[in-house]
Amino acid sequence: MKENTVILERLARLRSVMAKKHMDYCLIPTADHHASEYVADHFKAREYFCGFTGSNGTLVVGNSWAGLWTDGRYFIQAEKELAGTGVELFRMADEGVPTINEYLAEHMRQGETLGFDGRAVTVRLGESLAEDLKDKEIRISCEEDPAGLAWPERPPLPCHPVFLISDDLAGLSASEKMKQVREKLSEKKANALLLTSLEDICWLFNFRGDDVACTPVALCYAYLAENSATLFIQSGEITEEAAEAFGAADVEIRNYEEILSFLKTRNYQGETVLYDRQHLSFALLQVLRERAEATGGSLVAGQNPTLLLKAIKNETELEKIREVYIRDSAQLTKFLYWVKTNAGKLPMDEVTAAEKLDSMRALLPGFIELSFPTISAFGENAAMMHYEATPEDHAQIEPNGLYLVDSGGTYQGGTTDVTRTLVLGEVSDEVREHFTAVVRGMLRLAGCCFIEGCTGRNLDILAREPVWELDMDYKCGTGHGVGYMLSVHEGPHNIRWRQLEGETETPIHPGMIVSDEPGIYLAGRYGIRIENILEVTRGAKNGDGQFLGFEHLTWVPIDLDGIDVSFLEERERRWLNEYHAGVRERILPLIEEEEIRAWVMEATREV
Amino acid sequence: MKENTVILERLARLRSVMAKKHMDYCLIPTADHHASEYVADHFKAREYFCGFTGSNGTLVVGNSWAGLWTDGRYFIQAEKELAGTGVELFRMADEGVPTINEYLAEHMRQGETLGFDGRAVTVRLGESLAEDLKDKEIRISCEEDPAGLAWPERPPLPCHPVFLISDDLAGLSASEKMKQVREKLSEKKANALLLTSLEDICWLFNFRGDDVACTPVALCYAYLAENSATLFIQSGEITEEAAEAFGAADVEIRNYEEILSFLKTRNYQGETVLYDRQHLSFALLQVLRERAEATGGSLVAGQNPTLLLKAIKNETELEKIREVYIRDSAQLTKFLYWVKTNAGKLPMDEVTAAEKLDSMRALLPGFIELSFPTISAFGENAAMMHYEATPEDHAQIEPNGLYLVDSGGTYQGGTTDVTRTLVLGEVSDEVREHFTAVVRGMLRLAGCCFIEGCTGRNLDILAREPVWELDMDYKCGTGHGVGYMLSVHEGPHNIRWRQLEGETETPIHPGMIVSDEPGIYLAGRYGIRIENILEVTRGAKNGDGQFLGFEHLTWVPIDLDGIDVSFLEERERRWLNEYHAGVRERILPLIEEEEIRAWVMEATREV
Repeated sequence: MKENTVILERLARLRSVMAKKHMDYCLIPTADHHASEYVADHFKAREYFCGFTGSNGTLVVGNSWAGLWTDGRYFIQAEKELAGTGVELFRMADEGVPTINEYLAEHMRQGETLGFDGRAVTVRLGESLAEDLKDKEIRISCEEDPAGLAWPERPPLPCHPVFLISDDLAGLSASEKMKQVREKLSEKKANALLLTSLEDICWLFNFRGDDVACTPVALCYAYLAENSATLFIQSGEITEEAAEAFGAADVEIRNYEEILSFLKTRNYQGETVLYDRQHLSFALLQVLRERAEATGGSLVAGQNPTLLLKAIKNETELEKIREVYIRDSAQLTKFLYWVKTNAGKLPMDEVTAAEKLDSMRALLPGFIELSFPTISAFGENAAMMHYEATPEDHAQIEPNGLYLVDSGGTYQGGTTDVTRTLVLGEVSDEVREHFTAVVRGMLRLAGCCFIEGCTGRNLDILAREPVWELDMDYKCGTGHGVGYMLSVHEGPHNIRWRQLEGETETPIHPGMIVSDEPGIYLAGRYGIRIENILEVTRGAKNGDGQFLGFEHLTWVPIDLDGIDVSFLEERERRWLNEYHAGVRERILPLIEEEEIRAWVMEATREV
Repeated sequence: MKENTVILERLARLRSVMAKKHMDYCLIPTADHHASEYVADHFKAREYFCGFTGSNGTLVVGNSWAGLWTDGRYFIQAEKELAGTGVELFRMADEGVPTINEYLAEHMRQGETLGFDGRAVTVRLGESLAEDLKDKEIRISCEEDPAGLAWPERPPLPCHPVFLISDDLAGLSASEKMKQVREKLSEKKANALLLTSLEDICWLFNFRGDDVACTPVALCYAYLAENSATLFIQSGEITEEAAEAFGAADVEIRNYEEILSFLKTRNYQGETVLYDRQHLSFALLQVLRERAEATGGSLVAGQNPTLLLKAIKNETELEKIREVYIRDSAQLTKFLYWVKTNAGKLPMDEVTAAEKLDSMRALLPGFIELSFPTISAFGENAAMMHYEATPEDHAQIEPNGLYLVDSGGTYQGGTTDVTRTLVLGEVSDEVREHFTAVVRGMLRLAGCCFIEGCTGRNLDILAREPVWELDMDYKCGTGHGVGYMLSVHEGPHNIRWRQLEGETETPIHPGMIVSDEPGIYLAGRYGIRIENILEVTRGAKNGDGQFLGFEHLTWVPIDLDGIDVSFLEERERRWLNEYHAGVRERILPLIEEEEIRAWVMEATREV
């Protein structure tokens, strides 16, 4: 195997910093200082030091060894990208694979030092490391950023102006939201909140930013007390309009960097501060804890009340979302028509196809940005759940296989996420059996009936069982929450059969929206995923409880060429036909081109 | 409403004891000193003081108020039995109903005293009460048994000879089991085990007893150390044969009451003792903790390793169980034939029918006892999940409704549990829709495919969704584990969509057996339950994991008169027909009577 000399040199530089700082191991998470899912280039140290570009992964570097931990979505991709770097791949949650904590507890020697940037490590991770390495008396060094010190060409912090979300679009003013949050805080016996997750702060104060690709958020912190609210944000991000709006809502603006001095000098007398172990950084908690104790305040760890308030969309948001999804669906349908009818006739590859789709989305009213980089994957590339074609490395789209496209946009009025897999040319019976299983799973979850109190763990099997019946599994959750003009992956709810470690299970509430995306991924062969976003709706309420169900938000034809009707149960066939009737009803009014209309009619015919 | 003077007088006597002992509230659980599910009469204080006879319930008595907490299986029954006692019914897990801890935390006044028998309250309950009542500085008085002091006619402790289980029947000798347990202990970094749950002790030492109705266990304790095993049991229970066998396995026998002095005087130096918060009594833990600390031992709370070892049946046990279930199924089928063909012709009521069934079971080879009191319920009585007909209070069985019979036996070679609901005469379309939904749920769970790691929380919806689709719910779990010649309800696994408070979720392992019993219960109208016991079996194993499924152990016709085939999905119809073919194949060889054979053929016909 060819050595990746770029990465090997970077790792050597990192190890010489580690030696100077007396660190035996160093841990580099994929994280900004806010535990965001997607991060600005400034924070992509893990990618810089090992070459793995996936959105989730943690690099651990020792003196003569390095390992990368990532989840099932990225196993195939990581293997490829780590080739020649000497970095060992740890497939999280696979049988017999140790966690980072387990690995370090086994391999570190008594009294050694583990270094990491305390601002980029959450309280949860930092405390769990401290706990699990206690027996070996491991010293934690978190004051300095070893990765930053070994990264001369590091990009600067991003800084872009914010924009406001009108009350018409938000459904609730910032003041009303702050009131709700304060009520929830008092239920948790707290009266102050240190907010560090960017989506939560943007939601609370009704603004958006542009500091992170594909997520319209700004780098910021917030501190909400009983009678005050403070937003910490780079001065270059605050427009005049924003300054005025924040002033009107009694939100004080301070510079981003001042969060540290604010926490260090505040008098916490009479304050019980809620913080979120999953999002607050290990470094900030040390400062907060020390000062709070010194001034008579107290701390309580818990979920940010903003998390659930933001996840349960209000009626205004839901109305906007439904409209946005129909427009987005119609546009994607036009693109699918183009691929389906032109594959093999016009030249197209994964990159040009994605560019075409992205530019079509950009034409839609209210378009802000893509909600994530479009996954445009043909053939075996689609077996990588989060594959990204690049100009250097991509495949042609040809009429002899499956083409998977997972894409979405953020618009004024909502964030979309949708996956379709197209059958191009002839495919085998086996492919159709697999395709049909995935469609069955998607429809079964979407069509289910449940009761209030259920979490995603109760529901996951509905989507997954048709895949399990084939002795296969997809190594990821079935569904995730979706933000409102925010992150495309937003909790606290999700649909998984087992929770990620340390995750709190959240019941599925009416007004939440969630993805429904079972799949089949066969390494080296093909990948199938069908993803709709669902809205949680109320059914009957009686002495037995509040019954709930789902309604589709996504209205895009499912490729009937992939479906073998003999595998469909009667109700699945009914659901499929009803869904396709819904597609016609909603998107045809937005499609003028006669030939596309005719294609949609055919693509959504009754089976 | 007529006053229940018997109960009122008993409560008055209890209150006068409470006054003497300076208790403001007293708590009376349904428990022996081992947290057994079914208890000997000696321990039925809760029933004595409030009249409620269900198997699960906790009575709390204040100076001028009393309340009973019970679960959904017993809401209707408890309401009936508490009538005229003034005892308030708290429907556990219903919306807005406080838990006992919440109730006491709200209603007890600063500094008051809560009394209970510390031997009859588990560590978990005792500690949670102490914790939740801490803010009000409630004193816990657990040295004396207030109920016992107010109960002059209390029956004595039961004491019956034990009997041994041969290695042929157990599959593993007591010595082999002790070795397994010690290995599991060392995985948990412990080297001693205080065992207080009766089923676990009987399983470990391969014996059974007769101290509790319907559960063949003896009152006992056990202490397993690295090089010793001690069984505490009343001397009147040890036969010569047993003494010899225990001697051969190096199990020392001491008197039941000596557990206290043993724990109080042991030197725990070098011992780490595992105890189970769910089964150890609050009183014993105090003794253990004090002495262990004083002598340099340490304690660790955790699940008894016996629990999982006992739940995963070995191949010998499974073979015996399969045979026993077929014999039990054939016998029940004969009874169902009799009811189905004679209702309305011969006189029969709930009690005489149950007696007939019970006496038929008693004729089977290896019969030991019923595994629980037969539930024989006609019409609206079946809406009470755990209804028990009595000679004084029962209904006739008539050819104009549904008859539910839930029953089982313990035999040499297994414990059974099965429910069938019969349609007698004409029933409405609605009844058939409901009946079909219950059957569909049962079949869907039994026919499912899942992956190792799943717990009952992942699977429950498969059985329950057809009921939810009708905007109804059953207020209990879908399934429970079943013991091997032990308790009919045995964890640690179960099938529920949400766990009971404090319960640990256990993945479903191959070799476990579990019930599958969805139902519909309409108060004042009817109850439908279909219950099979399933064995967990292995499917394919590959890179995605170990796939699992179920096989039926129960082989009894499901009444086709209750089924409206138009509600069945195709695969459900297939499953039903396959199941009925299996019934014919397995039970016809055990049925000689031509007319019953003919009836079975008809009752299991293809639909």
